[in-house]
Amino acid sequence: MEGASVRKDLLSLLGKEKVLTEELDLMYYSYDSSFLTQLKPETPWAVVLPASTADVQAVMKYAYDHQINVVPRGAGTGETGGSVALNGGIVLDLSNFNEIVEIDQKNMQVIVRPGVIHAELNKRLAEYNLFFPPDPGSSQMCTVGGMVANNASGLRAVKYGCTEQYVLGLEIVLPNGDLIYAGGIKARTLKNVSGLNLTKLMVGSEGVLGVITQIRLRCWPKPKARGIVMAVFDSLDDAPATVLEIYQAGIMPSGMEILDSSAISAVNMYKPEINLPDAEAILLFEVDGNPPSVDYEGNVIQEVAGRRARTVEWSTEPKRMAQLWEGRSVTATAAARVRADGTRVFAGEDISVPLSKVADTLRAIRKLADKYGIKVVNYGHIGDGNVHTAPVINTSIPEEVEQVKKLVHEIHLLAIELNGSTTGEHGVGAVRRPYAEMEHGLAVEYMKKVKQAFDDKGIMNPNKLF
Amino acid sequence: MEGASVRKDLLSLLGKEKVLTEELDLMYYSYDSSFLTQLKPETPWAVVLPASTADVQAVMKYAYDHQINVVPRGAGTGETGGSVALNGGIVLDLSNFNEIVEIDQKNMQVIVRPGVIHAELNKRLAEYNLFFPPDPGSSQMCTVGGMVANNASGLRAVKYGCTEQYVLGLEIVLPNGDLIYAGGIKARTLKNVSGLNLTKLMVGSEGVLGVITQIRLRCWPKPKARGIVMAVFDSLDDAPATVLEIYQAGIMPSGMEILDSSAISAVNMYKPEINLPDAEAILLFEVDGNPPSVDYEGNVIQEVAGRRARTVEWSTEPKRMAQLWEGRSVTATAAARVRADGTRVFAGEDISVPLSKVADTLRAIRKLADKYGIKVVNYGHIGDGNVHTAPVINTSIPEEVEQVKKLVHEIHLLAIELNGSTTGEHGVGAVRRPYAEMEHGLAVEYMKKVKQAFDDKGIMNPNKLF
Repeated sequence: MEGASVRKDLLSLLGKEKVLTEELDLMYYSYDSSFLTQLKPETPWAVVLPASTADVQAVMKYAYDHQINVVPRGAGTGETGGSVALNGGIVLDLSNFNEIVEIDQKNMQVIVRPGVIHAELNKRLAEYNLFFPPDPGSSQMCTVGGMVANNASGLRAVKYGCTEQYVLGLEIVLPNGDLIYAGGIKARTLKNVSGLNLTKLMVGSEGVLGVITQIRLRCWPKPKARGIVMAVFDSLDDAPATVLEIYQAGIMPSGMEILDSSAISAVNMYKPEINLPDAEAILLFEVDGNPPSVDYEGNVIQEVAGRRARTVEWSTEPKRMAQLWEGRSVTATAAARVRADGTRVFAGEDISVPLSKVADTLRAIRKLADKYGIKVVNYGHIGDGNVHTAPVINTSIPEEVEQVKKLVHEIHLLAIELNGSTTGEHGVGAVRRPYAEMEHGLAVEYMKKVKQAFDDKGIMNPNKLF
Repeated sequence: MEGASVRKDLLSLLGKEKVLTEELDLMYYSYDSSFLTQLKPETPWAVVLPASTADVQAVMKYAYDHQINVVPRGAGTGETGGSVALNGGIVLDLSNFNEIVEIDQKNMQVIVRPGVIHAELNKRLAEYNLFFPPDPGSSQMCTVGGMVANNASGLRAVKYGCTEQYVLGLEIVLPNGDLIYAGGIKARTLKNVSGLNLTKLMVGSEGVLGVITQIRLRCWPKPKARGIVMAVFDSLDDAPATVLEIYQAGIMPSGMEILDSSAISAVNMYKPEINLPDAEAILLFEVDGNPPSVDYEGNVIQEVAGRRARTVEWSTEPKRMAQLWEGRSVTATAAARVRADGTRVFAGEDISVPLSKVADTLRAIRKLADKYGIKVVNYGHIGDGNVHTAPVINTSIPEEVEQVKKLVHEIHLLAIELNGSTTGEHGVGAVRRPYAEMEHGLAVEYMKKVKQAFDDKGIMNPNKLF
């Protein structure tokens, strides 16, 4: 079918309020935060803004009958092209379908529509002494639906796990319009092992199996206290060694972050008053829990890190904690400013490797950066080996664009070679798709069969994941 | 095919050491702990004891070519008939395929073959200051492969989650003999969001999709301290109310157990020296972590529970902790002895309900027990609403058998009615299969399609789950 007739059909199906067809509106949906879509934006045929599960079902039934691609989208903060219609079709913008349906305090759960913003949800939950632990960097913008679709995490994953750990149930509209409930039609339990685990299959499936229209999340008691430790290292290898020694001391911090020398200098260049010490690596630890536990763990970390670190500082005082953490807070912004004429490229930006190989990985990335003559800033969630790399180039210079593509490819290969993955938290989308067979081998064939089981016409976010 | 020719083929394929064909040996595999198989044991045609992934592949290829059912089995501690060949075929006994392949301390992981015993694994991990948190009651007997296949949990699930939370990767032999790796072929990462999550799909799939031949688990730092609180309540409703108030105080105990009046009297009858106080309910809390945290949380729980409880006691002293916990430790055994001529029936034994409905559930079960004239002992993991019910009957009296079947059916219906599930941790197997549609509706059709994607000939543990 043609875009024009699809637009006409959707307008008559759902009305002007819920369908975008103007070129200017559609443009906004032609990209996400990925380098891929920055280089080559792709405009969808139409955008639908559903306000109900019935709306989503109506769109899917129409798309199924006419074999039109549908791409679900939250806030578009993704970095893999996952929510962009790269092969034409309809974008389902779920960001306005954002009700907090019920905060079920007495059962430690919350039920939301997919468009609710992560930070907004946690603000509301805090009123009930509850919290939803995953904490993506895009918290102020990203939707919970997008988090579920990508199995998002962030710095607290080391202690609290990824989004999947909290998803108890899902309402899902399938490609043919069927409505199913994963986790039990009317279940409101914390524990349930009945049936194949479609809930967890759906988490991280990046919109290739169906459209998530309602989410039931487990909540945790909100911790009462937190503390921050900063440790400065002259040797890169001391950073992962310290992390392991902290685990060995029986401590599970809620965050363990690393800035390597590239990130330290980027931060100091961006905001000299932060004045991070020159070093091979800075580790930042967050501990949370009850007040005596936070004190104890902060002290143990200070002692353990102190065996290898040049300096260690520890605080539970809010102002000082913010100062200690400030270098990490501004890293992403600072990384983008290391060149006056540069732009940070979101590609190869979230590989994961085994903890024991983090130092080797950072060294190898520096070498690759030199090889291709590209500035790269490295930081990340060292506690679970999730490394963020920020290449900065002048995107108007074609040679640099070509070089960075080669660099990113090598970073992806490096991750796989070092028993890691091309993506620790941001997902596959279109950009890590070429590595699926390398990472998963024959299992990819079975992933395709599973997709086929839900999406026999292949209309759900095609050409993503594998 | 006939059993005789299958036995002959398997003997020539794998040799006498790995194939059991004698009636007496096969008898042992005709049941698990379920009431179902106690009433109607089913002997398999043959049992294979694989010693390698290649052995498993050889069996599966043979079974696939000849369209013979295969049922994987661990220690046979299951309570749902899940590991019994109810429709003939081959049982794959994986309990001797039990190597701990590698304790990768520096990456906080362990790699095991499916047959390793849970308690044995944790004993070995403790030497490295690591632990694998799930803790089924059958820890001393059950295999880790069985735990993965059933997504097992136990009393610490409330804080530490179920088995699925720890499974990072799996090696799986599929029905046609294909070998796949879920979670990355050579990945050794803690975080990985590449591809559809076949790992978590496989966890809890009860052997209907393939055979798990290797498991990569995330480990946690072993906590340094623990403490126990016992609180005695005159009103059943005060028990869940207290649990909620403890969550609200920001505390996440590592265990929250309930014994209701039926369990209290069973324990006192079985071992009068334990001398539990007469009450409507006793709650037992375990807290773990660093020593100051344990002290703090124990004190908060004591204070919070003290608002509603008749008495509260709290200890970190090992001998006293064991005494406080003893009532819970012996509950399962005590439940089986409430009638001199009785046997505990494992059926309807692990429903889960929302926390807010635990008291109503226990009251309703007591009414049902009266209605059918059957003694039922109630206890369980109140923190996540997972209720254990133990009906005790004289199994040689046909009327009692018929009555208990009706009772169990009503308990299952009650769980679904109260927004719960027929199974919080033990799985579906053959016995909760009739409730699949009631719990999951149309989603069951998609579970079947997913099974079909892996098992096109329907030979993997057929007629289980749905």
